[in-house]
Amino acid sequence: MSLPRIGITIGDPAGIGPEIVARALADPQVRVACQPVVCGDQSVFAEAARRLGLTEQIRALGEFCFVDSGVVGGAALPVPGQVSALGGQAAFTALKNCAELALNGRVQAIATAPINKEALKAAGVPFIGHTEILADLTGASDPLTLFVVRELRVFFLSRHVALKAACELVTKENLLSFSRRAHRELARLLGQESPKLAIAGLNPHSGEHGLFGDEEVTEIEPAIRELREEGLDISGPYPADSVFYRALTGEFDAVISLYHDQGHIATKMVDFERTISVTLGLPFVRTSVDHGTAFDIAGKGIASPVSMVEAILMAAKFA
Amino acid sequence: MSLPRIGITIGDPAGIGPEIVARALADPQVRVACQPVVCGDQSVFAEAARRLGLTEQIRALGEFCFVDSGVVGGAALPVPGQVSALGGQAAFTALKNCAELALNGRVQAIATAPINKEALKAAGVPFIGHTEILADLTGASDPLTLFVVRELRVFFLSRHVALKAACELVTKENLLSFSRRAHRELARLLGQESPKLAIAGLNPHSGEHGLFGDEEVTEIEPAIRELREEGLDISGPYPADSVFYRALTGEFDAVISLYHDQGHIATKMVDFERTISVTLGLPFVRTSVDHGTAFDIAGKGIASPVSMVEAILMAAKFA
Repeated sequence: MSLPRIGITIGDPAGIGPEIVARALADPQVRVACQPVVCGDQSVFAEAARRLGLTEQIRALGEFCFVDSGVVGGAALPVPGQVSALGGQAAFTALKNCAELALNGRVQAIATAPINKEALKAAGVPFIGHTEILADLTGASDPLTLFVVRELRVFFLSRHVALKAACELVTKENLLSFSRRAHRELARLLGQESPKLAIAGLNPHSGEHGLFGDEEVTEIEPAIRELREEGLDISGPYPADSVFYRALTGEFDAVISLYHDQGHIATKMVDFERTISVTLGLPFVRTSVDHGTAFDIAGKGIASPVSMVEAILMAAKFA
Repeated sequence: MSLPRIGITIGDPAGIGPEIVARALADPQVRVACQPVVCGDQSVFAEAARRLGLTEQIRALGEFCFVDSGVVGGAALPVPGQVSALGGQAAFTALKNCAELALNGRVQAIATAPINKEALKAAGVPFIGHTEILADLTGASDPLTLFVVRELRVFFLSRHVALKAACELVTKENLLSFSRRAHRELARLLGQESPKLAIAGLNPHSGEHGLFGDEEVTEIEPAIRELREEGLDISGPYPADSVFYRALTGEFDAVISLYHDQGHIATKMVDFERTISVTLGLPFVRTSVDHGTAFDIAGKGIASPVSMVEAILMAAKFA
């Protein structure tokens, strides 16, 4: 069986992306799991590899593995740790090239290094992040984020909204449409017809039958009843301080968390560096590290490649 | 150095308390860490030990270690798994005796097995749980709960209130008075003059400077500035999906979580069974398992004593 081909972007040239990708490629686990196809500026990547003393190992990968964006080219390399329009443009082009490889079936999944919002803005790229760019490039209407760490998989009913606003979004209607999508995408990802989904409670102890908070009674339970009548294996609401542990130990295939931190805390306490973000609902699977460009340590050769390695391995697994 | 004397209640006689205490006493780790003084009905405890085949080991502890409540006495033993007034009365009396031992300096700390709200109510005990009973027995005005697992210690600004209501409780005034108390009690517990406390953010990414949610800007940051001016080593707000991990790895002595599940999820994902609740602000330290009476499995000899062992060991450590 041939290894899956995985597209890997190096992210913003001024961030830690080029370093962690170079280190990840030198990791034997990555080399036995996939054929990497790196997308980015050759000059930036070569410099990162040189600084880390990894030039020879990277060269041994062979020429075919690099898709040069050619944005930086012969120009001065972006300075590590500094936001620049050139960096934003380079990151955007690398991602675009990588997505095209995936759309054309040249790679089976992609893993992305961090990009920088400010740099994208400076480059005039009209999107705030990877997911929005990929949705636009692929015509996907509504990508879905899944966090994965070990056997724990977590969807998010809402993400970057205030906690109070997130509480307001816990409605029967939102839960119905979101749970159906999550169930469909999870079934596709795992290749299982009927994965088991659990829904976390919103209030402490799931509200103890309305004693403190009534969203469980008025919104969540009615939604679950309707979803089960549709034949979906969805249950809950389960107290949030036990449901993630139960999923981790295999009782559920995934948990729907009702707000950002609920699922973020749960996954990151299991393994901070190996919590990987997976984007579903695109024509291909995309994995990503769950950290930023770390401009404060970029170029110093001290960034840990653990998350990047895990993101690539997970892309290979799901490819 | 003589071992600390630890008072241990067996909890509701119809729950898993008697079993897990019997098993914990038979654990060599417990025997080398403390001199246990068990409080409960001798008849109930003897029956639990007999069912588990632990009678001989328990007998070897010596008579002095048991303070018989004498509530059940020669009456029929409470049936495992059934709420009863007799059970509630027995649990209450055992706790009262145990607290008196601690108040009189006969034990240096106490560890409690689960009691049942309904049984207490049936027995006419006008309190809903351990903390309320102990506050009344000791005259403590405002006990404080600390969760501990490995090196992670977590306080809770609020606990059993709806999540929306918990958001409303995140005010500068509440944070000031709570943080001062938490700092004082932590200093006493750890024997450190100036422990480092971190405050978690309420909103995702601590709101990103007001981008989603403004409690960080309007309430939390002003409270922290004032606390630091008072000389307390308190910092934050830190994003909730990293602050608990940072405390676990030693950066902070404790974290103030802003609502129930924030800190509960964080601690329980580290080690579900070894997350122990510690009550501070009493004249003595009290530790407790973080599970209930588990009436569904009581009397079957299958309840895990891991949490009870951990609660006793932690009481011995803090005694």
